[in-house]
Amino acid sequence: MWTEIIELQGQLIDAYILPRVLDEIVRSGGDFELERMEFGKRQEDPSHAVLRVMAPSQSAMEAIIRSVRRLGAQVDDEGDAALSSADCDGAFPEDFYATTNLKTWVRSQGEWLEAEDIEMDCGIVVERTPDRHLARCIPMHRVRKGQLVVVGHRGVRVEPLERPKERELFQFMSSTVSSEKPKLTIIRDIANRMLECREKGEKVLLVGGPAIIHTGAGPVLERIIHRGLLHVLFAGNALAAHDIEAAMFGTSLGVALERGMPVRHGHQNHLRAINRIRRLGGIAQAVEKGVLTRGVMHACIQRGVEMVLAGSIRDDGPLPDVITDSLEAQEAMRRCLPGVGMALLVATTLHSVAAGNLLPAHVLTVCVDINASTVTKLMDRGTFQAAGVVMDAESFLREMETCLGPGDVRHEK
Amino acid sequence: MWTEIIELQGQLIDAYILPRVLDEIVRSGGDFELERMEFGKRQEDPSHAVLRVMAPSQSAMEAIIRSVRRLGAQVDDEGDAALSSADCDGAFPEDFYATTNLKTWVRSQGEWLEAEDIEMDCGIVVERTPDRHLARCIPMHRVRKGQLVVVGHRGVRVEPLERPKERELFQFMSSTVSSEKPKLTIIRDIANRMLECREKGEKVLLVGGPAIIHTGAGPVLERIIHRGLLHVLFAGNALAAHDIEAAMFGTSLGVALERGMPVRHGHQNHLRAINRIRRLGGIAQAVEKGVLTRGVMHACIQRGVEMVLAGSIRDDGPLPDVITDSLEAQEAMRRCLPGVGMALLVATTLHSVAAGNLLPAHVLTVCVDINASTVTKLMDRGTFQAAGVVMDAESFLREMETCLGPGDVRHEK
Amino acid sequence: MWTEIIELQGQLIDAYILPRVLDEIVRSGGDFELERMEFGKRQEDPSHAVLRVMAPSQSAMEAIIRSVRRLGAQVDDEGDAALSSADCDGAFPEDFYATTNLKTWVRSQGEWLEAEDIEMDCGIVVERTPDRHLARCIPMHRVRKGQLVVVGHRGVRVEPLERPKERELFQFMSSTVSSEKPKLTIIRDIANRMLECREKGEKVLLVGGPAIIHTGAGPVLERIIHRGLLHVLFAGNALAAHDIEAAMFGTSLGVALERGMPVRHGHQNHLRAINRIRRLGGIAQAVEKGVLTRGVMHACIQRGVEMVLAGSIRDDGPLPDVITDSLEAQEAMRRCLPGVGMALLVATTLHSVAAGNLLPAHVLTVCVDINASTVTKLMDRGTFQAAGVVMDAESFLREMETCLGPGDVRHEK
Amino acid sequence: MWTEIIELQGQLIDAYILPRVLDEIVRSGGDFELERMEFGKRQEDPSHAVLRVMAPSQSAMEAIIRSVRRLGAQVDDEGDAALSSADCDGAFPEDFYATTNLKTWVRSQGEWLEAEDIEMDCGIVVERTPDRHLARCIPMHRVRKGQLVVVGHRGVRVEPLERPKERELFQFMSSTVSSEKPKLTIIRDIANRMLECREKGEKVLLVGGPAIIHTGAGPVLERIIHRGLLHVLFAGNALAAHDIEAAMFGTSLGVALERGMPVRHGHQNHLRAINRIRRLGGIAQAVEKGVLTRGVMHACIQRGVEMVLAGSIRDDGPLPDVITDSLEAQEAMRRCLPGVGMALLVATTLHSVAAGNLLPAHVLTVCVDINASTVTKLMDRGTFQAAGVVMDAESFLREMETCLGPGDVRHEK
Repeated sequence: MWTEIIELQGQLIDAYILPRVLDEIVRSGGDFELERMEFGKRQEDPSHAVLRVMAPSQSAMEAIIRSVRRLGAQVDDEGDAALSSADCDGAFPEDFYATTNLKTWVRSQGEWLEAEDIEMDCGIVVERTPDRHLARCIPMHRVRKGQLVVVGHRGVRVEPLERPKERELFQFMSSTVSSEKPKLTIIRDIANRMLECREKGEKVLLVGGPAIIHTGAGPVLERIIHRGLLHVLFAGNALAAHDIEAAMFGTSLGVALERGMPVRHGHQNHLRAINRIRRLGGIAQAVEKGVLTRGVMHACIQRGVEMVLAGSIRDDGPLPDVITDSLEAQEAMRRCLPGVGMALLVATTLHSVAAGNLLPAHVLTVCVDINASTVTKLMDRGTFQAAGVVMDAESFLREMETCLGPGDVRHEK
Repeated sequence: MWTEIIELQGQLIDAYILPRVLDEIVRSGGDFELERMEFGKRQEDPSHAVLRVMAPSQSAMEAIIRSVRRLGAQVDDEGDAALSSADCDGAFPEDFYATTNLKTWVRSQGEWLEAEDIEMDCGIVVERTPDRHLARCIPMHRVRKGQLVVVGHRGVRVEPLERPKERELFQFMSSTVSSEKPKLTIIRDIANRMLECREKGEKVLLVGGPAIIHTGAGPVLERIIHRGLLHVLFAGNALAAHDIEAAMFGTSLGVALERGMPVRHGHQNHLRAINRIRRLGGIAQAVEKGVLTRGVMHACIQRGVEMVLAGSIRDDGPLPDVITDSLEAQEAMRRCLPGVGMALLVATTLHSVAAGNLLPAHVLTVCVDINASTVTKLMDRGTFQAAGVVMDAESFLREMETCLGPGDVRHEK
Repeated sequence: MWTEIIELQGQLIDAYILPRVLDEIVRSGGDFELERMEFGKRQEDPSHAVLRVMAPSQSAMEAIIRSVRRLGAQVDDEGDAALSSADCDGAFPEDFYATTNLKTWVRSQGEWLEAEDIEMDCGIVVERTPDRHLARCIPMHRVRKGQLVVVGHRGVRVEPLERPKERELFQFMSSTVSSEKPKLTIIRDIANRMLECREKGEKVLLVGGPAIIHTGAGPVLERIIHRGLLHVLFAGNALAAHDIEAAMFGTSLGVALERGMPVRHGHQNHLRAINRIRRLGGIAQAVEKGVLTRGVMHACIQRGVEMVLAGSIRDDGPLPDVITDSLEAQEAMRRCLPGVGMALLVATTLHSVAAGNLLPAHVLTVCVDINASTVTKLMDRGTFQAAGVVMDAESFLREMETCLGPGDVRHEK
Repeated sequence: MWTEIIELQGQLIDAYILPRVLDEIVRSGGDFELERMEFGKRQEDPSHAVLRVMAPSQSAMEAIIRSVRRLGAQVDDEGDAALSSADCDGAFPEDFYATTNLKTWVRSQGEWLEAEDIEMDCGIVVERTPDRHLARCIPMHRVRKGQLVVVGHRGVRVEPLERPKERELFQFMSSTVSSEKPKLTIIRDIANRMLECREKGEKVLLVGGPAIIHTGAGPVLERIIHRGLLHVLFAGNALAAHDIEAAMFGTSLGVALERGMPVRHGHQNHLRAINRIRRLGGIAQAVEKGVLTRGVMHACIQRGVEMVLAGSIRDDGPLPDVITDSLEAQEAMRRCLPGVGMALLVATTLHSVAAGNLLPAHVLTVCVDINASTVTKLMDRGTFQAAGVVMDAESFLREMETCLGPGDVRHEK
């Protein structure tokens, strides 16, 4: 029988960590004895527990430790993380450590290094040079032969997502994606956090689908951008193309936004808009030459919003600004993430899941969609921190603008 | 070979009547010759066509005439409608004429009588006394032994739903229930029609589900009622109970509407609200005694809104005002319909389908639901005139209030 | 400072009871000290904890005790439940104890009585006569003046729903209503439990919507009934009417089930079917007279399935067997529930929520719907034990029949 | 007043062409006189009409002709299509003719050329060399400076999609995407058409999402491929990765397909599967080396199915076989389309819309999704010919396999 002592510390009770650890041990075929247990007298005090864990084999013990560490437990006399040299470009060694989106530390030469650029479903490489000693999270395709990759689970710790008091509303939301809840309070809360982000100098990211334009919410988004409340935009060819269509022809997918009626031959308008931008070389050029004078794209160019337009196989055109290679587009998105404090994912499944894959768990993430299954899908794919609001894009943006209150555009420039 | 001459008159081209008639004839195993055809030169002019219809048997000819009459065609030398005496209470003779929700005329003693109280899926009885001679549409359960019921299709004409110019927006909507359309224009149009109804002295009917309260839109609806813009309310126990819960406890289904968070033991609040009203004898009594001082129900009582609360098997309580028998509830709804010019069906499938069954086709009908399938279901059940808006109840009502503009409550009293 | 000692016993860790109790205390403004704590060494051993709870006021202490008792905690020196005499018919005293659907005990004259007929959102009356001493759960409308009603939370205990090992699959399902899961295993599991129910002599309840007939799954359900695997059916007028329409005309809502195409004038078929049954006096009479010779209703009559057809305001007709009063229909459903071990809620929101309100938490409950929001709604309304399968009714029933394996109809009679 | 004579020929009545043309003229501000009208006596006979069209201006007349030509009308004395030389790479001249997915002819030097490779939302170039004279449809990004591009609407004809008798079932389906319809007949029809395609030597295309694997339908699809019934597969990284995950680890997205339960650390399995294939260089290599021995990908490699795996920004890895550039992926898909007679779009919005953009209107197209809005979206984007089936991928494939009947794998190799 293999035995090991593990220690647990933190909000064992409140965050359900203790029961999950014990559950995990027993399910893995192991057993435990509670050596010591000190409860914090008050909820905010940390608790402390020492467990003697028994397992039928070394590999079973490994499995247990891997599991409980994921829950925040610490194991005595832990060694360094095992490292293995990548034997080819673009793929990890077979037993690479696969990351979560939680804060992660790797022990190397006795030192705990926080992995930089943490992101879901990647691997961790350790760089040791005389100058620097660091751990970095990298996607599979970026690994190069010879890099030192963390393998197995020893010497790796993740920090579980604590339930912060201040995020209570978000917590409530994340458990309930129903369309039958009062939404105004939630939107007010989101608006306040956006204002806070601006105050704290954190960036706000919007990941948006074309329904924002189709439903007539383009002008709302435009005003929010002009108020300096959005700093990064991830979208596809469609949002940009229909926004430009709206600016040039007053339609979106051929439907007149003013009158809500389809326009004769209007379904060609987005093609003509794309074609015109292609003739000019890009969106910025169109703004410069006075061909594009309003809309979301225009506002982004004017306000210097960082923008990644990622291509997809259903694109018409596409616009010259669209990055058609999906790996390049992912990399472009990664470059925008540092400094982002809040992410709004509005009316797009593809781009929301893509952004969700890249966002660290500590970024406040709100997913707005008229279809509850989009939020479910996001969480099924690992973006547990996302809070869902089931409503249409236009109503969401319009009510959020109201909650943001009157803003003086000039002063914010 | 049986032959008959039929005449078609009206918007044969614009409303696709001619092609559908010809199609019908050929499909029924018949054949036709176009005797004469006079097209209206302009779209608004009526067209006129005379067809010689041939059928292999008398019954086939009957079937053809039945079909084309449904499309508005008139048949020469048509006789009176056949009548059959009901041989038991609560059921029609086997071959009773089943109604649509379109305007319908029955020929009796050479006279064309418009069927009163027209409604879908019912029968028509003819009353002939020295004093009066009329046709009336009645539901199955109401027929009494001895009443004269129209059987077969001879001597019955229906008026197809013309495409009125002024309803264009509605027409567009009714073909598209997508959530990806600009909605503000549509809501503005709905708001204008509500104002028009008030001017014309027509009643506006709201059929509403409890999500109106859950999503926090109760106060919006309350204000609209106080402005005198709603005259009839069809709902169930749930809308009323949660509205009263909100008025008494500030929660709906136990969620605090102000903060959007579930309240301790809050799930019992609606039970306590219902219990309290039951102890007082009814909603009106609670308003009178000052126990209920705000909310939608309070506004309805104060403004004299006609109200039918229909029971269902999922009800708690229910409130004393709820009509628990479904046939009685249907009858109560029927009594409210005369004078209704517009119907808003918001966030309820059950009550919307029920109201849709009762509404004549000429009433402007708008169905608002976050789930597109509710609208589809309504149309599958025969309420073809319904226009669908896919959005959540709260956003719809809030934006509609904005479109209604500022109203002076006092002057409208 | 008010102080009280409470004891917790059971699967404190595994079922997250301890952390939730502590959380509850602190949130209610109280504080605690852990007096004693004995963990079960193994997962299956019960744990035991003794807590000293402190509260700022008597009412705060009451609130805490109420909360933690809901979680299964026991409080020392607990007195009898307070009883209050009902002062009117059809309504409880103001502070009545509102039930959950969990097993519940009431202390009366020092004795713990299990409340009979437990059901969600009702009250509990205690009957004390020389002959009997019992507690019974009753709905609001059934209380009669003078009955002794439990008020407040003292002297009431509920048994939390334990996580039974054998229900693991169900547990997994209940946390995930996604359409993106392997369903065959789940359906196989459901089929096995149906077979088990038959072996154990427990009844299986089907709550079904008309989509079962519309999608062509009627014959599947018919065969399952003939195999003796269904014992109770809750449905509405629509399922029965369209089943009879299918038996008489081969259509459902006017669509030919064999060819999947709408039939000429077919939308009237359900009306003619209803009318015909009304002329005969009921479904059983139609079976007896040989007018109804197949279909789900025919099978139910032949196999003696207990059947409640509950009316709703959208009904045509309705069939004479339909109970049009919703309170009477609820009572009829209640009478069928004793002995039910499993409930399948298929393709109906209204009837599923209604049945969910009545079912005790220990009945295995599966909710099948093509729309994930139906399952969410069921859980939002308190039927936490329901497991959700997102798929269409026809595929579910067809695959379940396959999983049930070949059955010999004759031997089972 | 500008006047022009137009002629209409074909199923004017049955296909509603005449009324739509007249409607179009009047709406465009024009007027008309019916010069001559010869109705086919029977439904199958073509009708013939000659209209004198009047318009207030030359441009209005142009607009009318453009519109009615779209409906199949022919205009007397039509000249050649106007051509304009492309003035830059990758963009058309401003007023380029934007294509539909209907068969299209261009008149050049008096000759009517059918545009090759017709596809929605593209342009048409005319190539005139001594050797050849042809019209070809090309996407925007492929145009090269100097190519002759069709501009305006003159000299272009499209063939409206006739309602073929044999497609009646499909026609019915396309008007109704409800989940409340009998599906078995529809699936049987689809299966028969697949068998017909094989007989006629036409290719069947499957466009599939990962839910096929998640729901456990992978083995069904594998068998269908082995029977030689599928010839082209369009999918993304996810379907392939989860299929390989299933083959290697028995899980999909970490859920064990056999038991329907999540597996410990299973969410990493797809990453490990992708990593392993990347180490080997590709899927074909993994099959060759015996690392991949079953599943959909294995079957595709073995049976020589043409396969396009298109990348998207949400991809992990991706697999080496994935084309990460969206324009390249579109081109690869285009290369597979010649010879395709039928397309099944199953459980994917992104890939379905992408394929829908590329497919000519005459390809039988079926869209299967649990969410009705996917089908709606497809049609909103112009793929009008698509017929929708609302059900889950697994049930669809399983029932289709049953309808395909027993197949002898060996003989078909």
